Amino acid sequence: MTASPPEAALGSLGIIHTQFLKLPRPLLLDCGRELPQVRIAYETYGRLSPARDNVILVCHALSGDAHAAGYSAAPNAGSTRDGFRAEERDTEQGRGLGWWDGMIGQGKAFDTDRFFIISPNLLGGCRGTTGPSSRNPVTGRPYGSDFPVITVADMVKAQRALLDELGITRLFAVAGGSLGGMQALEWAVQRPDQVDVVIAIASTHALHPQGVAWNAIARNAITADPDWQDGDYYGTGRAPIAGMGVARMVGHITYLSATSVRNKFGRRLRAADDIRYELTTPEFEVESYLRHQASTFVKRFDANTYLYTSRALSYFDLARQYGAGQLSRAVNAVSARTLLISFSSDWLYPPEGSAELADALRAAGKDVEFHVIDAPYGHDCFLLEEARQTPLIRAFLEP
Amino acid sequence: MTASPPEAALGSLGIIHTQFLKLPRPLLLDCGRELPQVRIAYETYGRLSPARDNVILVCHALSGDAHAAGYSAAPNAGSTRDGFRAEERDTEQGRGLGWWDGMIGQGKAFDTDRFFIISPNLLGGCRGTTGPSSRNPVTGRPYGSDFPVITVADMVKAQRALLDELGITRLFAVAGGSLGGMQALEWAVQRPDQVDVVIAIASTHALHPQGVAWNAIARNAITADPDWQDGDYYGTGRAPIAGMGVARMVGHITYLSATSVRNKFGRRLRAADDIRYELTTPEFEVESYLRHQASTFVKRFDANTYLYTSRALSYFDLARQYGAGQLSRAVNAVSARTLLISFSSDWLYPPEGSAELADALRAAGKDVEFHVIDAPYGHDCFLLEEARQTPLIRAFLEP
Repeated sequence: MTASPPEAALGSLGIIHTQFLKLPRPLLLDCGRELPQVRIAYETYGRLSPARDNVILVCHALSGDAHAAGYSAAPNAGSTRDGFRAEERDTEQGRGLGWWDGMIGQGKAFDTDRFFIISPNLLGGCRGTTGPSSRNPVTGRPYGSDFPVITVADMVKAQRALLDELGITRLFAVAGGSLGGMQALEWAVQRPDQVDVVIAIASTHALHPQGVAWNAIARNAITADPDWQDGDYYGTGRAPIAGMGVARMVGHITYLSATSVRNKFGRRLRAADDIRYELTTPEFEVESYLRHQASTFVKRFDANTYLYTSRALSYFDLARQYGAGQLSRAVNAVSARTLLISFSSDWLYPPEGSAELADALRAAGKDVEFHVIDAPYGHDCFLLEEARQTPLIRAFLEP
Repeated sequence: MTASPPEAALGSLGIIHTQFLKLPRPLLLDCGRELPQVRIAYETYGRLSPARDNVILVCHALSGDAHAAGYSAAPNAGSTRDGFRAEERDTEQGRGLGWWDGMIGQGKAFDTDRFFIISPNLLGGCRGTTGPSSRNPVTGRPYGSDFPVITVADMVKAQRALLDELGITRLFAVAGGSLGGMQALEWAVQRPDQVDVVIAIASTHALHPQGVAWNAIARNAITADPDWQDGDYYGTGRAPIAGMGVARMVGHITYLSATSVRNKFGRRLRAADDIRYELTTPEFEVESYLRHQASTFVKRFDANTYLYTSRALSYFDLARQYGAGQLSRAVNAVSARTLLISFSSDWLYPPEGSAELADALRAAGKDVEFHVIDAPYGHDCFLLEEARQTPLIRAFLEP
């Protein structure tokens, strides 16, 4: 019954089945290794036009999956929406709603009346696409830490291979937020002849150093957990749940702004009106919220996928092959029109990063539009501020 | 030889011996428990005047100790200075330099030619003062998690008891940064008749909710480590080193500004010029720096002291007994002149917090001076921006 859309969900795409496809050829990765028998989980929304010219690829962020819109057909599928308001919605509107449901559907930002939207789980994922928890065909056991270290470019290669199998040559657009935006930008430089529009929201051409540090801390929290067992915890009956919980807490606070934490929780105590002198029991509401977030997340997400994906997004640097400060050279290849959206309170992917990229694109004579939306929810804005992103995106997707 | 002051340290106080004193009576704590046989470690700098009217109490922050100035007489004493520039200085000028050496000494902000400065290790500490790693006289074993949960007010009670033993009735001033500033503010409201000047730097009347969250995450990292063993790890041959390392990393990044992380490390890689596709080995300089910070810290600091002290600073709310929004009532008792200093880039103890306190003091007709120093080093500024704090403090300490 969890997948039954309640009344509040009118306008949703209804029940969506995740599909799966096995790539016929191995993927040659940036690290030099080949990954055989790659399976990709994906969902589609809307209808492919006869000319196959209305395809939008939607790319998800670190903790997302293929289920971007509608209600999941999978039994007991929890919503993969992040963010604290999204968490509430998860409860209010029933479980299993896609992480960008407010943006994908009839009349929404990515309008299913016009576009055929493909949403794959990224390479290295744990929600259907081949990743470290998948069976290594060579050994017959899960990859664990023998899974190759991947890059955002590798994720794009896997998406390209998926589209080949689906018979889709060109993308009208590729869009995503955060790590999803990095994938969109990678498409723009890796396959400039195959994409007309790039939309990167709350994203960046290269994560700033403090963000690199947060990601390293989260990974350290996981690998410091003895239950991680050097990455080979599958089948042992133990998994780095405690470390993942701490990693998630770090991530979660970096996704919110200080203002949104204040507005949501303040310094409210859980007990009536005074402290109870407890060392480890949460006393402040924000403390018990963090515990709750951690325990929810560890149930649905694989720790190794977190490690590999965090590594890839820290690596990501659109200008890497050209050297530091050579962003303008890196964007020379771009031929797509580019829409960049940032949020004023996002300190993990701050507007300055997108502004730098917009400047580089403009300097290279490219067609770029850049908006900063003034909103208080931090990085989570890209999942929450749907109403204000929608007109910008709809207008930009006009031919 | 570590305590031998090199030439660069001219103007330092020379070699300082930490002193120890046992309180004659148990301390009655806020939680209702009594703590017997409390020992306090402290250092003094300068000379007590015959009238005993030139005493300044200096209070340290979460990871500090009694050794605030000069070179430690203790063999192999590492500097307890925090902050990344302080780290460099630690190497350059020899080990064992006190955490506020740039502020305490002849002609410095806290001038030892005029003042007698007392710097105790706080209650619950692990550097000489009674804390969770101390022997519980009742059981004969270390307290561990049976140590009572303490408050900033309890820390002040212990300081008051220390001063009683030293025959000091009044303080000319009490000063500190961060948690040290909280102790100074607590003195102002708890003992208004006993202190003439309060100096709270990079501090607050109540940690903002995001700061509460960071502290909860750091504590979770420690308690999630199975080697923590519910706090009773002493003598087991195991200690929550991994969890403490993660806690320290979280703390460390919150002490720096995004700008200072960028200026110091950028996105520089450790390997020549390219990524090496390593999942757990640090690849970015900021990643290996965090590992280094963590491994250094766990050698000198007790995890339980971190937990208890972090709890106390999260609890701290000058207005607690008066209820939310009642800061103006809380400060009514203050009779000291108050100097508040904040730093523009400090997002853990942001200037807004000090501004709110300054407003409340002013509204209550109190004598308050508030400065925001424009500096890029984040919360660590209070340890680093000595030159710019010094004239403000010296002027404020004029009678």
